[in-house]
Amino acid sequence: MVTRKEVAELAGVSEATVSRVFNGLGPMKEETKQRVLEAAKTLNYHPNAIAQSFARRRSGNLGVVLPYVPKVHLFSTYYFSEVLSGIGAKVKEMGYDLLLMFRSQDEESDYNDVFRSQKVDACIILGAADTPRERQQLKKLEEGGHPFCLVNQHFTGERFNEVDADHTAGSYSAVKHLLEKGYSRVAFLNGSSQFSNSGDRRQGYIQAMREAGMEPENLAHLYYEGNYSRTSGYRAAAAVYERRREIDAVFAANDRMAIGLMQGLRELGWEAGRDVAVIGCDNSDAARVTDPPLTSVAVPFYEMGSLAAQRLLEQVNGEPGGFQLKLDTELIIRQSCRKA
Amino acid sequence: MVTRKEVAELAGVSEATVSRVFNGLGPMKEETKQRVLEAAKTLNYHPNAIAQSFARRRSGNLGVVLPYVPKVHLFSTYYFSEVLSGIGAKVKEMGYDLLLMFRSQDEESDYNDVFRSQKVDACIILGAADTPRERQQLKKLEEGGHPFCLVNQHFTGERFNEVDADHTAGSYSAVKHLLEKGYSRVAFLNGSSQFSNSGDRRQGYIQAMREAGMEPENLAHLYYEGNYSRTSGYRAAAAVYERRREIDAVFAANDRMAIGLMQGLRELGWEAGRDVAVIGCDNSDAARVTDPPLTSVAVPFYEMGSLAAQRLLEQVNGEPGGFQLKLDTELIIRQSCRKA
Repeated sequence: MVTRKEVAELAGVSEATVSRVFNGLGPMKEETKQRVLEAAKTLNYHPNAIAQSFARRRSGNLGVVLPYVPKVHLFSTYYFSEVLSGIGAKVKEMGYDLLLMFRSQDEESDYNDVFRSQKVDACIILGAADTPRERQQLKKLEEGGHPFCLVNQHFTGERFNEVDADHTAGSYSAVKHLLEKGYSRVAFLNGSSQFSNSGDRRQGYIQAMREAGMEPENLAHLYYEGNYSRTSGYRAAAAVYERRREIDAVFAANDRMAIGLMQGLRELGWEAGRDVAVIGCDNSDAARVTDPPLTSVAVPFYEMGSLAAQRLLEQVNGEPGGFQLKLDTELIIRQSCRKA
Repeated sequence: MVTRKEVAELAGVSEATVSRVFNGLGPMKEETKQRVLEAAKTLNYHPNAIAQSFARRRSGNLGVVLPYVPKVHLFSTYYFSEVLSGIGAKVKEMGYDLLLMFRSQDEESDYNDVFRSQKVDACIILGAADTPRERQQLKKLEEGGHPFCLVNQHFTGERFNEVDADHTAGSYSAVKHLLEKGYSRVAFLNGSSQFSNSGDRRQGYIQAMREAGMEPENLAHLYYEGNYSRTSGYRAAAAVYERRREIDAVFAANDRMAIGLMQGLRELGWEAGRDVAVIGCDNSDAARVTDPPLTSVAVPFYEMGSLAAQRLLEQVNGEPGGFQLKLDTELIIRQSCRKA
């Protein structure tokens, strides 16, 4: 094992100078720095990275907190896979590694533990939901001065770092499109209200319906709720089909539910794109290959992940100010909402 | 900040004892240990985790090396998302965190750097290909005594830890199924030969064809090669269609290529499940929702990831011996290969 002392001798500097070079501390002549790096290279000197991190209190890792749900193949859901792809690419570009930390719903640990372990310099929290406990934990994290960012979730009344999409406008454009095509009885299959995007989508839906002369208090029979899984969409099919005389289109809050719904309705003899129009959200890969191909609101999850990582790491590296970003969505029209 | 000294005083032990408890070192009376933990809890003492890791030379992280390809949404490919889901669940269960490290093809760093940084205790390498450079790097890793494991890739002649699937048997069963249904001119759309599973699938294809009386030297016109992307399957459609009089079925080495191929053939007027039988591999989510639904060889990627993480971490924790595991595949029959 080559020591710091040997590098110092070869470079003709003190051991402290070698340390300062490898820890990036203090002012330093470029020439001295180059001499030390040259000597280190010649001797094949690798300073212990953990000891280095300890000195700098930097891990070089960006943390991502993910919900852990047994048996759910998390990375196979479009939302998580795209956001993580975006984070991963940016982190690589900025010279960091990515530490994934899975967190059970019932776990006692709080977010501060993530930082207490000093394994990350900052963290992105995915799958956060607006519950009193979550709010409290995020507040504590903020009070602890730990840099973090939420993706696709906002907390009204707080100024947490966040990168969100304009789900209200996305839903509005989807429902508006249906109304303009001549559909008038548009049902809405939403996900759980603990996610802010469910509330946002509901708002967009109501706005478009109201503009078409339908007041929210008259829409109760058109409102359905699932949990963003394909199974929950499939289950909703029976309830939607029962009211088929009052419904001519369904807008679903994600593609998974839309696909389950189309499948369930087909089994009951009701075909999307023929008997009923269906629009989903996410514009996932699956939307392109379903039969009929699914019209969907595209959400730039990859860009959201990439941007969250970039802004957060810039903040860690001294960029001042927090950030609340909201990216645009886009309606991608396919055959599932064509007029028969 | 609470110090080790304060904990020692409250527990009535020496500072060294407190250290030993938190580093899990040496023999210790259970009662003493409990007294120290109790005192630490009372005082809200959190020993610095990086300093701890330094003392123990343990990071508590399992590393996963992933290929970094700009613009490719890695986590959105079925193989990576499923393997990572399996690894993630097992890692969580065993009390580790998951450090993802992206590696560019053209990067000079070698696998040893992964361990040199001491940020991981062991690592799983995904997306490795059988190239001379890769072999050399893995050999160096082995010589360095660093625990690692390959998933879905084997290196003939080496005894690296690996968890693979029986792709030869999977392909054999798919082609055999086509032959038994009365198809006789079965084309094979394979992926790049630098992946061992491409070679394995080729072997299974040849074996089934040979049993049906077709010798490998007469199969050249039935052999096509893509790169496992949907686009490459789509591109192969033209070549397959040109030879349509000599082809009545296509077996593709993954679902992405099979889906691209079906799409391309449809545009040429050739429908899978009517004019030609198509079988894919992976049994990805997409296989269920294509039109027609795609017959596919199911590969237990989730279980492969889970098993790789488990066996590797057991090895890190003292379990003796290496492992080479091969999991079974299963043919899932859907409408894309029905006889018109």
